[in-house]
Amino acid sequence: MKEIAIGIDLGGTNCRVGIVSPKGKILKQEIFPIGRDRSPKSIINILKNAVTTVREYESTRVRGIGIGAPGIVDFENGIIIRSPHYPGWHNFKLRDELSKAVKLPVILDNDANIIAAGELWKGAGKGLKNFIMVTLGTGIGGGIVIDGRVFHGDFGFAGEIGHQIIQFDGETCDCGGRGCWENYVSIGGLRWLIVGDERFNGDIEKVTPRNLFELAKEGDIFASAIWKKFGAYLGAGLASLANVTGILSFVIGGGISGAWDFFITETKKEFGRRTYKETAERAVIKRAELGDSAGIIGAVSSVLS
Amino acid sequence: MKEIAIGIDLGGTNCRVGIVSPKGKILKQEIFPIGRDRSPKSIINILKNAVTTVREYESTRVRGIGIGAPGIVDFENGIIIRSPHYPGWHNFKLRDELSKAVKLPVILDNDANIIAAGELWKGAGKGLKNFIMVTLGTGIGGGIVIDGRVFHGDFGFAGEIGHQIIQFDGETCDCGGRGCWENYVSIGGLRWLIVGDERFNGDIEKVTPRNLFELAKEGDIFASAIWKKFGAYLGAGLASLANVTGILSFVIGGGISGAWDFFITETKKEFGRRTYKETAERAVIKRAELGDSAGIIGAVSSVLS
Repeated sequence: MKEIAIGIDLGGTNCRVGIVSPKGKILKQEIFPIGRDRSPKSIINILKNAVTTVREYESTRVRGIGIGAPGIVDFENGIIIRSPHYPGWHNFKLRDELSKAVKLPVILDNDANIIAAGELWKGAGKGLKNFIMVTLGTGIGGGIVIDGRVFHGDFGFAGEIGHQIIQFDGETCDCGGRGCWENYVSIGGLRWLIVGDERFNGDIEKVTPRNLFELAKEGDIFASAIWKKFGAYLGAGLASLANVTGILSFVIGGGISGAWDFFITETKKEFGRRTYKETAERAVIKRAELGDSAGIIGAVSSVLS
Repeated sequence: MKEIAIGIDLGGTNCRVGIVSPKGKILKQEIFPIGRDRSPKSIINILKNAVTTVREYESTRVRGIGIGAPGIVDFENGIIIRSPHYPGWHNFKLRDELSKAVKLPVILDNDANIIAAGELWKGAGKGLKNFIMVTLGTGIGGGIVIDGRVFHGDFGFAGEIGHQIIQFDGETCDCGGRGCWENYVSIGGLRWLIVGDERFNGDIEKVTPRNLFELAKEGDIFASAIWKKFGAYLGAGLASLANVTGILSFVIGGGISGAWDFFITETKKEFGRRTYKETAERAVIKRAELGDSAGIIGAVSSVLS
């Protein structure tokens, strides 16, 4: 009998829920807002309603639910240990509570890992044995694929690549450390790089990847220079990951990757400067293909396989 | 029938060759110097003679040879792509040439990987599912163990952890990059940290881990401070590795690890500062157990298993 699965990509302000066919096709998807009340109980209610809503679109039997959530996820036990977007969550047993609420099996993973799983199954990672998924946005999300499967590390903590240290004595980071990669390669990083431009001084919040992208497109030399600097930091971090893991394929996604043409040349150059020739020659740095759908598709990939 | 294997740990100035029992016991080992002539042909001759010499100690049948060599090793194909200690080597088919010379099957791996394999089989890594082996010496050697096996990455390049970037704008490194971890956490790193101490100024070559260790033991506050700084850089790099890989066990070996008591407290503190509480709580940082024998034991582990 044909079966479908429901994929949920839980973000900081809303959750994206979709019905996915066994072949990885999204049959229907919808976005549900997360309100002010962010308690575990309230989230379970929102998710339950969302699942009920999308189930009505398809009468096919639902095999299960795959959900990705932001934060440190204990993959084995289906627990969110903590989440930057949900400060009240500590050891929240999201998997089991959702499963009980909707009476379906649930698989919980980190949001960056489901994106990696999605690109692996249906996107830019198809056919790659090993690759590292890098999602550029508010921070850097990471998912490590080894031997065609997402690698979770000892407790499911693998892939916090945004917190590799790139500058020992650098800026302090939300994680408590300093000089983390995502302080340079992110929306905040762009703002940090831009300090000094009079057009933005005093109103740094005006700087968005979008307007920096537009400025660069109009030929603004300063904006182009910022993207190059951004690209160099990206390339240095990728080089560091390649040197450590020996994984030489990278799939780059996330909102900021839209400015690809303005940073990728510098990214590849910097990667070459910081790796052996033999590493750089073999490296593949490519764009993600699934956009915002990667999470939903990836979330169900282990449910359906 | 009982069989033995021969393990070879090829270094920059000599090679250590040993006969190992199927249980991982070294029955006999000997050190052979590498002379001035470092051509592939000369090395094959030295290795051939070394193997012939140690074979005479045991009449048991030899199942095969495991060899670890410094440099970038293409594990699958048994080729040394390049080696810092042997500048003349490029794509040297060490595995097949040695195999032909001694008429035995040969497995070639990177020198840091065989140390990891040794500690995994008979040392501090015993029973660990995942761990990262860190060898502190002239540089930093690294071996990544995943699911009880050394992980090689896409082309066998995995584990070049000494070239994770720790300071984006840091000192230039032999690899061509800059700010690599091993510029701070190594013999050269100790010298770099010490710049400013009048006792050494003008003769920085006098600084060795040994005399810094002796000074610290005598209660020299400055030497102690250097070891603490060294420990902090070590801890930051381990934190970075933990964040990226989610592997939370580390086995630390190599000559400099002898000064353990003078740096480890700071290493653990810095690790804690740069990881989430949940990561730091679960992390295990322990000393290697096999010393100089790790390589030989590890080299044969895949031959005997």
